[in-house]
Amino acid sequence: MKTSQIKVSEIGEKGLIERIIEKSKTCSIYGFDYDMDLSNFATSIGDDSALTSIDIDDNSYLVTSTDMLIQSSHFPKGMTYFQMGYKSVVVNVSDLASMGADNIGFLLNIAIPKDTLLDDFDDLICGVISACDNYSIPLIGGDTNEANEIIISGTAIGQVYKDKALMKYGFEKGDLVCISGELGYAALGFELLDLKEKDPDLYQEKIYKINQIDPTIIDLALLKALKPEAKYEEGHILRDCNIESNRVSATDITDGLASEFYEILNSDKKYCHDNNSNSYTKGIRIYEVKLPVENEFKEIANILGLSYLDLFMHIGEDFEFLFTINEELRDQLSTEMNYYVIGEITGDDTVEIVLSNGQIEKISSRGYLHLK
Amino acid sequence: MKTSQIKVSEIGEKGLIERIIEKSKTCSIYGFDYDMDLSNFATSIGDDSALTSIDIDDNSYLVTSTDMLIQSSHFPKGMTYFQMGYKSVVVNVSDLASMGADNIGFLLNIAIPKDTLLDDFDDLICGVISACDNYSIPLIGGDTNEANEIIISGTAIGQVYKDKALMKYGFEKGDLVCISGELGYAALGFELLDLKEKDPDLYQEKIYKINQIDPTIIDLALLKALKPEAKYEEGHILRDCNIESNRVSATDITDGLASEFYEILNSDKKYCHDNNSNSYTKGIRIYEVKLPVENEFKEIANILGLSYLDLFMHIGEDFEFLFTINEELRDQLSTEMNYYVIGEITGDDTVEIVLSNGQIEKISSRGYLHLK
Repeated sequence: MKTSQIKVSEIGEKGLIERIIEKSKTCSIYGFDYDMDLSNFATSIGDDSALTSIDIDDNSYLVTSTDMLIQSSHFPKGMTYFQMGYKSVVVNVSDLASMGADNIGFLLNIAIPKDTLLDDFDDLICGVISACDNYSIPLIGGDTNEANEIIISGTAIGQVYKDKALMKYGFEKGDLVCISGELGYAALGFELLDLKEKDPDLYQEKIYKINQIDPTIIDLALLKALKPEAKYEEGHILRDCNIESNRVSATDITDGLASEFYEILNSDKKYCHDNNSNSYTKGIRIYEVKLPVENEFKEIANILGLSYLDLFMHIGEDFEFLFTINEELRDQLSTEMNYYVIGEITGDDTVEIVLSNGQIEKISSRGYLHLK
Repeated sequence: MKTSQIKVSEIGEKGLIERIIEKSKTCSIYGFDYDMDLSNFATSIGDDSALTSIDIDDNSYLVTSTDMLIQSSHFPKGMTYFQMGYKSVVVNVSDLASMGADNIGFLLNIAIPKDTLLDDFDDLICGVISACDNYSIPLIGGDTNEANEIIISGTAIGQVYKDKALMKYGFEKGDLVCISGELGYAALGFELLDLKEKDPDLYQEKIYKINQIDPTIIDLALLKALKPEAKYEEGHILRDCNIESNRVSATDITDGLASEFYEILNSDKKYCHDNNSNSYTKGIRIYEVKLPVENEFKEIANILGLSYLDLFMHIGEDFEFLFTINEELRDQLSTEMNYYVIGEITGDDTVEIVLSNGQIEKISSRGYLHLK
């Protein structure tokens, strides 16, 4: 229940910024009292830029990532304001985590329609702050604006030791191709939300059938679609393993696993080319039997008339990691985090899947691309 | 003349990012070869986050600023794509400069309609890169998206010695109130562009009259409105003067001079309150005769049926600095940069102007505020 009908236009830009500062004190369980020294932060509130105390020397990189979420493209119908705010932090933290970075701070740049209810604005900000809390990344600055729809542009800032940074490139033939968790649930969630919007009766009918197979799966799929989480801890674990004898490469899966396969190969090819290694022949082979997919998931995809492999490989937005390790690291890593070895780096110029019937199929790069 | 009708949708998100990287090599007069070491930058192109080598210790702050420009609110009709891109850098560099910061890097987050012509996209990116060149701030990362109108969210990152940072607060009664240059030209430019759009005949008539007074002023006003510049050098000069005995406070004028007067007073009041100084009585008095306004500007405002003082004080967007210095710094600073002393900090709780006829008038805080 909304307690009031006040609109953001009655508060104005500066009032909203004060409100964000206030919320970050009251919403946050830390009240800005993170591990790091934020005494300087208080000093620069309301000034032209945010000031942050950090200590970065020649051994580390400053790591920065910026991502814009636009209501009509990125927020499915049914997403709450809290979830919109939360996701705007997750997408950026995920990019930092997949480099193995430690978080320093988050900048929030938000545009909203002027008739947005203040309560909804508050919910959105609480989503941002809640995510900042979860990932120990303080909100250090930002800006508010007016637009026809909600636009959230976040910038996450972190740091990482140069020799530990998790790049997309740097794997060799024989390295294991791994993912940090199950894929396809977010994609399933998007399909369900879309169906609910377009054909509520058919949606109810499908839901009934799905619940007979597994009554928990719909909630899980909706959670993954509406309130994804970043693999922050896993990023740190992989980074700490990334030493010369144990090379690790990593990226977060945002545009679909298949698309990311081509991303890491292109990145590695470019890297090898820049390092004067001109002939490049590496590829990826994965195995259907190694994919972490429950039978119930396959059945449910079937009920919805979808290919489970499509959901698994071509949608993304689960924010799991695709990463490579060398064989020697396999056992040690198993003691530190959950992950699945789904295939290996090959010496062929192909990306392919060995199906459970033994057939080998090429995997196309078709992923979700904006502006296509 | 556009040489082609290719749309950005034919290139796709990743193609556009590659295009930006390509442009930053070819458009930039530096070709990414700035003073700083960017060898790491090349390494992280296309990865999840940007990696930058910096050296910041306990004596410095990381300085960050983020600003979103939305076509319908921030880009007047008649602004070119190049100018849109250019301005997106200027607004952020201006925020960094007004803290006295040295630039480290710029992140570009851009959303465009999918039917945008590739030539226009290229022009916009060249505007971004040209501004990055001018202010020696390398483009280190970013993202592209699709939206119904052009949205550019920039993030500028810099650093400043802690004891040199130019805050909005920290002035005393008797300090001089200064501006770094003439104000009101951007406001005049916006008025002209608006009139041209709404009533082309009346516009031509006014232009004819204006040109009889001063044929250069229209070009200057349009330049200030369409291609503003940040006071980067001035920020460094003021910062270098900001030592204990020569306190300097500064902010860039984005929402209008009058609005910034109240901003710096509020900031100073909060600062004094946080430092346990409970009774606060400071104000600002400026003098009409000290304002850097040419008679021709007054006459032209008159032709347009506008108050020149309104243009000077209530619009902003000139990106000049409002700053305070103590009297002892006056002569030294004159040898280093152009500026105008327009008044002083008083011990009264008012913001007022002494008009040229001797009358004293209160100045209201009315500035340009989004979402109001």
